[in-house]
Amino acid sequence: MQLLENRIIKDGKVFPGNVLKVDSFLNHQLDVDLLDKMGLEMKELFKDSGVTKILTIEASGIGVGCLVARHFNCPLLFAKKSKTLNIKGDVYTSKVESFTHQCTYDIIVSKDFLNENDTVLIVDDFLAKGNALNGLIDIVNQSGAKLAGCGIAIEKGYQGGGDKLRAQGIRVESMAIVEKMDDKTGKIIFRR
Amino acid sequence: MQLLENRIIKDGKVFPGNVLKVDSFLNHQLDVDLLDKMGLEMKELFKDSGVTKILTIEASGIGVGCLVARHFNCPLLFAKKSKTLNIKGDVYTSKVESFTHQCTYDIIVSKDFLNENDTVLIVDDFLAKGNALNGLIDIVNQSGAKLAGCGIAIEKGYQGGGDKLRAQGIRVESMAIVEKMDDKTGKIIFRR
Repeated sequence: MQLLENRIIKDGKVFPGNVLKVDSFLNHQLDVDLLDKMGLEMKELFKDSGVTKILTIEASGIGVGCLVARHFNCPLLFAKKSKTLNIKGDVYTSKVESFTHQCTYDIIVSKDFLNENDTVLIVDDFLAKGNALNGLIDIVNQSGAKLAGCGIAIEKGYQGGGDKLRAQGIRVESMAIVEKMDDKTGKIIFRR
Repeated sequence: MQLLENRIIKDGKVFPGNVLKVDSFLNHQLDVDLLDKMGLEMKELFKDSGVTKILTIEASGIGVGCLVARHFNCPLLFAKKSKTLNIKGDVYTSKVESFTHQCTYDIIVSKDFLNENDTVLIVDDFLAKGNALNGLIDIVNQSGAKLAGCGIAIEKGYQGGGDKLRAQGIRVESMAIVEKMDDKTGKIIFRR
């Protein structure tokens, strides 16, 4: 998606350790108009998949997830990262290793909101090694729902998570795939 | 807002300890169409306030915040609950006591995205004692931005946080104010 690639080049910042900082428009401050255009693009791509539910993970997936759900005219469900006092009853759980936070945490989705009648599009802001997506796919599988695929804002192609999922036959559509970054020059190269 | 009150009566669940569970449409699964209508209502209420930025707090404020920001055609900024590896540089911080999680945490907003030229509408899904809002207001004050007011989905009127803010001269607009709940009968009474 040219609009997103242009924005990453304009406002993204590359730091050592393969960190791409896009918090001016994607994960601290959100450009809702840009998210809405990504939502429209994902709707185009998955329009024939019979999607009944968008699934994401708190916190920064919620923004893009909301705008995708708006175009599909279906609910957004977000996995929570720890069991709070307000989630009662039966839940699906999985474990996710976080690169950013350097820890492993449980993700939780209530069984009330996902079952074998659903067709799920998983949405997230970033895809690197695929740890969060693997946890969400595990939850979709536990629920018996059908997985339409994954819609991602920015995929870090060089970390391999997206290609591993594609090799398993999972449809992964990323609005921008970063193939290479150089923290010395700030140069970002996208996959064609 | 009649639509939200009707939905709370239909799908909200009352538990002992003044817990109102609305996770089928507001804070686990999100009814994006309902959020969008709340966004439109808040735009109507604050249309003359010159709002340049919506400010909320992760995680469940992001959903309603996104749809409010869409109607104001401005960015959504969300306060983060702990310092991650990906936030660098100068930040505004404040402390918030969480009733749900029974702890105190730091909230953080990058100074890059909020300054004295902004007029801020603070948005959140719930207002009880007002702890989260007080932290966000503190951050707005630190930045020198103007506070237009607070737009809330559900206010628990009986916990007094909203009225304390109003007594300080802060404009607080809640889409539904729960005045009383009874966990034995499930009855919910709204403020008129």
